[in-house]
Amino acid sequence: MQSFKALYRVSWVDTDAAQIVHFSNFFRFFERAEEEFYEHVGLTDWLGAKDVILPRVEAFCQYKKPARFNDLLEIELTVEALKEKSVKYGFKIYNKKTTELLANGYIVAVAVDRQTLRAVPIPKEVVEKLKAFCTADGAK
Amino acid sequence: MQSFKALYRVSWVDTDAAQIVHFSNFFRFFERAEEEFYEHVGLTDWLGAKDVILPRVEAFCQYKKPARFNDLLEIELTVEALKEKSVKYGFKIYNKKTTELLANGYIVAVAVDRQTLRAVPIPKEVVEKLKAFCTADGAK
Amino acid sequence: MQSFKALYRVSWVDTDAAQIVHFSNFFRFFERAEEEFYEHVGLTDWLGAKDVILPRVEAFCQYKKPARFNDLLEIELTVEALKEKSVKYGFKIYNKKTTELLANGYIVAVAVDRQTLRAVPIPKEVVEKLKAFCTADGAK
Amino acid sequence: MQSFKALYRVSWVDTDAAQIVHFSNFFRFFERAEEEFYEHVGLTDWLGAKDVILPRVEAFCQYKKPARFNDLLEIELTVEALKEKSVKYGFKIYNKKTTELLANGYIVAVAVDRQTLRAVPIPKEVVEKLKAFCTADGAK
Repeated sequence: MQSFKALYRVSWVDTDAAQIVHFSNFFRFFERAEEEFYEHVGLTDWLGAKDVILPRVEAFCQYKKPARFNDLLEIELTVEALKEKSVKYGFKIYNKKTTELLANGYIVAVAVDRQTLRAVPIPKEVVEKLKAFCTADGAK
Repeated sequence: MQSFKALYRVSWVDTDAAQIVHFSNFFRFFERAEEEFYEHVGLTDWLGAKDVILPRVEAFCQYKKPARFNDLLEIELTVEALKEKSVKYGFKIYNKKTTELLANGYIVAVAVDRQTLRAVPIPKEVVEKLKAFCTADGAK
Repeated sequence: MQSFKALYRVSWVDTDAAQIVHFSNFFRFFERAEEEFYEHVGLTDWLGAKDVILPRVEAFCQYKKPARFNDLLEIELTVEALKEKSVKYGFKIYNKKTTELLANGYIVAVAVDRQTLRAVPIPKEVVEKLKAFCTADGAK
Repeated sequence: MQSFKALYRVSWVDTDAAQIVHFSNFFRFFERAEEEFYEHVGLTDWLGAKDVILPRVEAFCQYKKPARFNDLLEIELTVEALKEKSVKYGFKIYNKKTTELLANGYIVAVAVDRQTLRAVPIPKEVVEKLKAFCTADGAK
């Protein structure tokens, strides 16, 4: 099992008046890691492609410690579950410097045909690339 | 048991290139309803007050149907669980016009002293006001 | 000359670690007033319509005083200039309670055909509705 | 005269229903370049520091061509004007791949004491570092 790691530096706009990153932004960091992951495995054209979109059907995050302005975050992505038409990505966000776990969560996305808006099977070549990042219990 | 309902009209900036509301924004709509709820019950000064902040420890959303630009959303808030130092708000987002359920989810927030950053009991007067919005199984 | 006024209450997510509204959000408040203006004058379907989009070609804001969490803002919109294919909206943002001017600025938008992506004349019926909100020197 | 260049890849959440980057986000890209600039010249602690904040008093952007999902942007920063208590940063955003200019604009920021909220002179060591990035007519 491999994981994919992306780096993101917290921007001023990500913070709120509690002087920590607003909780909704962790989901944006999850998605940013997902985007870099597609880039990394050569699936850049999949998300936002002409044919398939990946609407999210579930999103969850557990917050352990706050992230602050200018913190360098390491976002670790794994494939927690891979089904015919959906994928569940697991995420862990660390403070790169202190190595503390700040948050963990997941996103479940369904492959949908952009025209018909119906769920479609995840293409074989995508499945192949995702499998390498499956956690032990995620591979069906 | 009462619920609180807030209205929100989807702005252009809330949408993404799939021409639907970005999934992370549903969490912002949840929080907006929470803010209006505090206003409604006279706790405006509680969130963002001088003494107590309400960092979120968990957030979850299940997406049923997309919301689009200019849709009028009705966001229903209930108190799903009320503990000494934390509160779990449940949310349901409806399309006001079609009455369809678009999403449901929750936020768990902990009361924290702004200076010491330690969890503190939710003040009695706040508890009293929250209790009226508890779902059957949420009241301790 | 009339102006159009929209109300907006500052949400927690609008603020940043300086405990004031992030400067970029004032542009979102401008646009929200613009959206409510279209609603008000019966042009809801114009922005985000099937045929015409309104990409922005210029945006400017001058910041006088900060806005804070939970402030009720009054956003005043006027039509500062109306040309064949573009419109310049002027905005003033006030703190509704203190009546202080917090910011003023403008947005210039061009009418563009969604298919060809070429600038097109603003439809006559839109021009008629916009004219009532022209400032003295904005009417051609 | 030097300029500073930052890279930023457009995320899905940056786009709107017109399938292009929302105009307000260009200001966030400007600021992100500014943050990386402070990092680059060793002034990381200045923005968001304990003593001084840099509220913006003016922001402007001219949009030439749209940016889209996954575009790699190059954001060029120069110091257009340097006064005792304020600095005007100029920005140009290019599509890194096509080298097209997508947008240009500026931000004027004032140095303010975080406690007193009064404008204060930009510290000498900051001025020294900024000077190297002044455009010909920006140096006083």
